[in-house]
Amino acid sequence: MMRGFSEEEHRARVDRAQAAMDRLGLSALLLTTEPDIRYFTGFITRFWESPSRPWFVVLPMVGDPIAVIPSIGAALMGRTWLRDIRTWTAPNPVDDGVSLLGKTLHEVARGGKVGIPSGPETHLRMPLADFGRLQGVGIDFGDDDGIVAHLRAVKSEAEIAKIAQSCAIAGRAFTRIGEVARAGVAMTEVFRGFQRLLLEEGADWVPYVAGGAGPLGYADVISPADEAPLSEGDVLMLDTGAVWDGYFCDFDRNFAIGEANPRAEAAWAHLVEAVEAGEAVARPGARARDVWAAMARIVGAGETAGRLGHGLGMQLTEGLSLTARDDTELEPGMVITLEPAIETAEGIFMVHEENIVIREDGPQRLSPFASGRLPLIGV
Amino acid sequence: MMRGFSEEEHRARVDRAQAAMDRLGLSALLLTTEPDIRYFTGFITRFWESPSRPWFVVLPMVGDPIAVIPSIGAALMGRTWLRDIRTWTAPNPVDDGVSLLGKTLHEVARGGKVGIPSGPETHLRMPLADFGRLQGVGIDFGDDDGIVAHLRAVKSEAEIAKIAQSCAIAGRAFTRIGEVARAGVAMTEVFRGFQRLLLEEGADWVPYVAGGAGPLGYADVISPADEAPLSEGDVLMLDTGAVWDGYFCDFDRNFAIGEANPRAEAAWAHLVEAVEAGEAVARPGARARDVWAAMARIVGAGETAGRLGHGLGMQLTEGLSLTARDDTELEPGMVITLEPAIETAEGIFMVHEENIVIREDGPQRLSPFASGRLPLIGV
Repeated sequence: MMRGFSEEEHRARVDRAQAAMDRLGLSALLLTTEPDIRYFTGFITRFWESPSRPWFVVLPMVGDPIAVIPSIGAALMGRTWLRDIRTWTAPNPVDDGVSLLGKTLHEVARGGKVGIPSGPETHLRMPLADFGRLQGVGIDFGDDDGIVAHLRAVKSEAEIAKIAQSCAIAGRAFTRIGEVARAGVAMTEVFRGFQRLLLEEGADWVPYVAGGAGPLGYADVISPADEAPLSEGDVLMLDTGAVWDGYFCDFDRNFAIGEANPRAEAAWAHLVEAVEAGEAVARPGARARDVWAAMARIVGAGETAGRLGHGLGMQLTEGLSLTARDDTELEPGMVITLEPAIETAEGIFMVHEENIVIREDGPQRLSPFASGRLPLIGV
Repeated sequence: MMRGFSEEEHRARVDRAQAAMDRLGLSALLLTTEPDIRYFTGFITRFWESPSRPWFVVLPMVGDPIAVIPSIGAALMGRTWLRDIRTWTAPNPVDDGVSLLGKTLHEVARGGKVGIPSGPETHLRMPLADFGRLQGVGIDFGDDDGIVAHLRAVKSEAEIAKIAQSCAIAGRAFTRIGEVARAGVAMTEVFRGFQRLLLEEGADWVPYVAGGAGPLGYADVISPADEAPLSEGDVLMLDTGAVWDGYFCDFDRNFAIGEANPRAEAAWAHLVEAVEAGEAVARPGARARDVWAAMARIVGAGETAGRLGHGLGMQLTEGLSLTARDDTELEPGMVITLEPAIETAEGIFMVHEENIVIREDGPQRLSPFASGRLPLIGV
């Protein structure tokens, strides 16, 4: 599969953003985070792991995006479709790109409003003190009103293909889990082994692995692994966000170690049923809360419980949330997870998760859906 | 080695922060990012990969830190030393913790100033619109004046031990690189293979791998791998930030594929010499710019070139920068990289990097220093 995207696709994204900016009266957008910058430019690097340098892209209401970046990124940004690349030597404790960015924003916005993604799931990736300096030179900032988030929520075919690739990679790794997990193996080793399998199956990198184990499930699905060993009769859950060419999968698998507890089997059957119920209503025009309700009915989730799924793409989680409160209308091209959880004992849960893309005529499965009984490993 | 830190160590960090807050007249600190929150609480999870939920810790001028977090994190935060844990069900599109945080800040700060890390390398990890809402309810925010950054820059023995562990893991993986790299292997496969080796040698996860290859080095050290295969006579560089218990190493190795180009050998000798020159001056009381100058003289770096090393710890890069401009005084407990680069041809470089900790009586090596000739692989 081809890496990256065509210039045509990047230009189409810019065109859609500019049409929305026009409607809102924004003269420019200021982008500072990895996914927002990558979405419009194709700039992909793991160097964002270093917090030492801010990176900026200015998207004018008319014309091509302008990169205002540390000189260490000039060569890589030069291989994208962008032609206007302005650099400074960073880190510079006295002026870390602020005057160069201010000059660029003045030139582009000419006193008009500059939109910044400011809503849910966003943050401004630059020092707050530097943002204050920009405000001090008379740039008029405002909310982008979700323009970037809404564009990113609806995926192109090329984006969907990359997510499908990540899902296929994780699907193959999950079928090999018996190679790394059995009774007596510490969870730290299971997590390491699972990450190795994901890489062997083709993941570029593995930004996220979570999991848990116990006779009836797990207390927590966000903890790192500990040194506790797996035991006969445990349910082991592993959840991954593996990446191929910058796009995530996000789904999990549950396994019974040696033998399955009948109560865990019963919970598992409910989880599979809930995913299928969510899938059945995940069609264009349905709301996020409708998909939530279809699953919540089966697993007995209350309105104030956590979400039962979410969008995904360039980030592990992005876009809508499957909760009772989220009115987002499903559109073709949205990629979401179905992630019901069920309480099996006081404070103990089992969670199941699959990935789908919304199509005109209904959902299409991206992860290889689990079915049947809880798979046994180590026997 | 024990994971985590003692409650005593966390309390000592809080005490030092509170003493500095007292001097600055800050009533509280507001922390929002992964390393800042982990530093004071011990809260460690890969769940930060999901941008959907903000997380807050409020550190009062007197008393213990207060966690104001999504309920999904309550169980894990409950296993830290914190006792005051306030939660809301997130994501909530109407009020994503803002009113709970506002109430907590009013209660703690009582009209006094609330410091936020706002200087170099920081960002505010919450939606800008929500920050505006907090300002709107009369919380008086100001810069923390680098309190948190300065505390984090000087490591405890327990922190240094974790970084040493990460360095040892990467050191062992590098000695096995011939298992995954040879002429004809695509760089994507080399990167995957190297990540597998890091996991096999004990890394918990691998947030950062970069590298490059060519007869005289590489044009760029931040690009992801491409499908181009290694060739006989290439210099291959691999650089990693692997993590053990939340602490990074950050060093690289260069290898000659089959045979070494004499010009690459000569550059390599200069790089080794430069690292040793930097090491020789990296003592308490020296400035970051002194270490830079010792290396710059040997590799011929100009004052406006990129940095030749930096601090590291809970992040791949943090703290001081080895540039001509950075006056930071080295203190015992600071962990830094020595990272000279040398131009071997127009736009082509070789880079070398090692990790040291500053001790009272001079530097101590944390990475297993490379020496001698460029190591050959694939022969």
